[in-house]
Amino acid sequence: MEILDGNAVSSDLLNSLADRVETYGEDKPCVAFIRVGEDPASISYVRKKEKTAARIGIQSRLKTFPESISQVALLDEISLLNSDSSVHGILVQAPLPAHIDECVIFNHVNPNKDVDGFNAKNLGLLCQEDEKAFVSCTPAGIIELVKRAGVDTQGKHVVVIGRSLIVGKPVGMLFLQKKLTGNATVTYCHSRTPDLAFHTKQADILVAAIGRPNFVTKPMIKSGAIIIDVGINRIADETRKSGFRLVGDVAFNEVAPEASFITPVPGGVGPMTVAMLMSNTVKAYEQSLKKHPTQ
Amino acid sequence: MEILDGNAVSSDLLNSLADRVETYGEDKPCVAFIRVGEDPASISYVRKKEKTAARIGIQSRLKTFPESISQVALLDEISLLNSDSSVHGILVQAPLPAHIDECVIFNHVNPNKDVDGFNAKNLGLLCQEDEKAFVSCTPAGIIELVKRAGVDTQGKHVVVIGRSLIVGKPVGMLFLQKKLTGNATVTYCHSRTPDLAFHTKQADILVAAIGRPNFVTKPMIKSGAIIIDVGINRIADETRKSGFRLVGDVAFNEVAPEASFITPVPGGVGPMTVAMLMSNTVKAYEQSLKKHPTQ
Repeated sequence: MEILDGNAVSSDLLNSLADRVETYGEDKPCVAFIRVGEDPASISYVRKKEKTAARIGIQSRLKTFPESISQVALLDEISLLNSDSSVHGILVQAPLPAHIDECVIFNHVNPNKDVDGFNAKNLGLLCQEDEKAFVSCTPAGIIELVKRAGVDTQGKHVVVIGRSLIVGKPVGMLFLQKKLTGNATVTYCHSRTPDLAFHTKQADILVAAIGRPNFVTKPMIKSGAIIIDVGINRIADETRKSGFRLVGDVAFNEVAPEASFITPVPGGVGPMTVAMLMSNTVKAYEQSLKKHPTQ
Repeated sequence: MEILDGNAVSSDLLNSLADRVETYGEDKPCVAFIRVGEDPASISYVRKKEKTAARIGIQSRLKTFPESISQVALLDEISLLNSDSSVHGILVQAPLPAHIDECVIFNHVNPNKDVDGFNAKNLGLLCQEDEKAFVSCTPAGIIELVKRAGVDTQGKHVVVIGRSLIVGKPVGMLFLQKKLTGNATVTYCHSRTPDLAFHTKQADILVAAIGRPNFVTKPMIKSGAIIIDVGINRIADETRKSGFRLVGDVAFNEVAPEASFITPVPGGVGPMTVAMLMSNTVKAYEQSLKKHPTQ
């Protein structure tokens, strides 16, 4: 069994991005973060993204709004960033309050600045296998981890648990693409799938993105499978100062000995998500230069 | 075994659409067809679509261009139709000549007039489960057939053979949606899937969209499965005046007795595709009225 070390791979990736950003001279990519409300997890994620950007020379701006902001007002704020040529990437931290339709917000972000890849146009370009598409960060990070592990995905059976727009659907579409780290047979399972284990036991590569702590257990996997754990679940832990600890969707201790590769939580998919966000920001910046070569 | 009669269902659907179109008075929906080159199948498909439109009171325009038309010139022609307010739907008949990038063409069609549903934005809206999305016609027709047969898809295992943008990918996304005629477990197989029969034998609903005549045989299916045959393959037949006959991707005679429902070729999915195109045109027309309520 080998650990797919997201910290190491993302660190490597971030170093390459830092070198690349350095070549730009004075002009730097800039990403804008929008955070609504004071959800502790959202605060922590955005802070992590700001720090990582700063570390590799990417500028960032944080715009925070109260939980009570209206959808219209939030759309207006996005419009301002859409038309601001000094901003190359825009990220609206999910989840948003219940009175705001997340898809309306995602679809309002200029597709060329959509570093989160949640805009309908980028989802469609991903389905079309267009290289210019911004692919959402967690799926892109998963593919990068699998690629760096030297896994040949062609003809492998990838089983995805979860059909979210943010992870499940796009990661399946990526494994299905007609190119390297694609060409896999892909099965989508979810909460309405009866006898989930029947499907997960077939997986050469299992992607768990359900959001339920320790959900995937040893009897659910095939010996030698590659296990990708997308879950980041906070469970109470009195021994920690914070009062909680993070666990994945996979019961790591019992599953890991059976797996060929497995991602830990934390330190697996999580850091890859942040690294891919930076990669998308650099891509948005470089694509903006091609569109405005006089800059 | 029951035949899923696409002719009957599409006829029913077209009658409803005709009634609806009649209520519009003088103002009628209009769809523009673009055909490039003289491919006999394309000519026949477009003619069928023109006739069906006329039958239900939808206006149509046909624009034909020589095989040699440049991509830029074709984009310009689409721009004219995009900005023509008397045109509500635009369909570019595929396949296009090799020197033209189909996705570039599809993505240039105004998403609000994209009655074929191949534009990246509509593909993305489909992934987002947005009701306003134009869903490509063959997948939408398949769902309609399954719905009219009274099949409960929730928890069923749908296996799709084929990962095309036009059929495979969208039909899987539809069966995966969190609503009626969705909530299925979905597996995508394709040319790189080893041991295809291992997967197809698990299917409660099998969608064959490979484009290979009589490819799916009896040993590949589970007894009682619902078989959806998307293939329209011309094979030589000297007994026919045309010199050919149409067969599906499924070896109908041996598979049908094992199936609970099966679509024939011709007369299954084919007529549904045309009916859904008309349905999309009506939808495009009605959505255009909502945007310009003064019309």
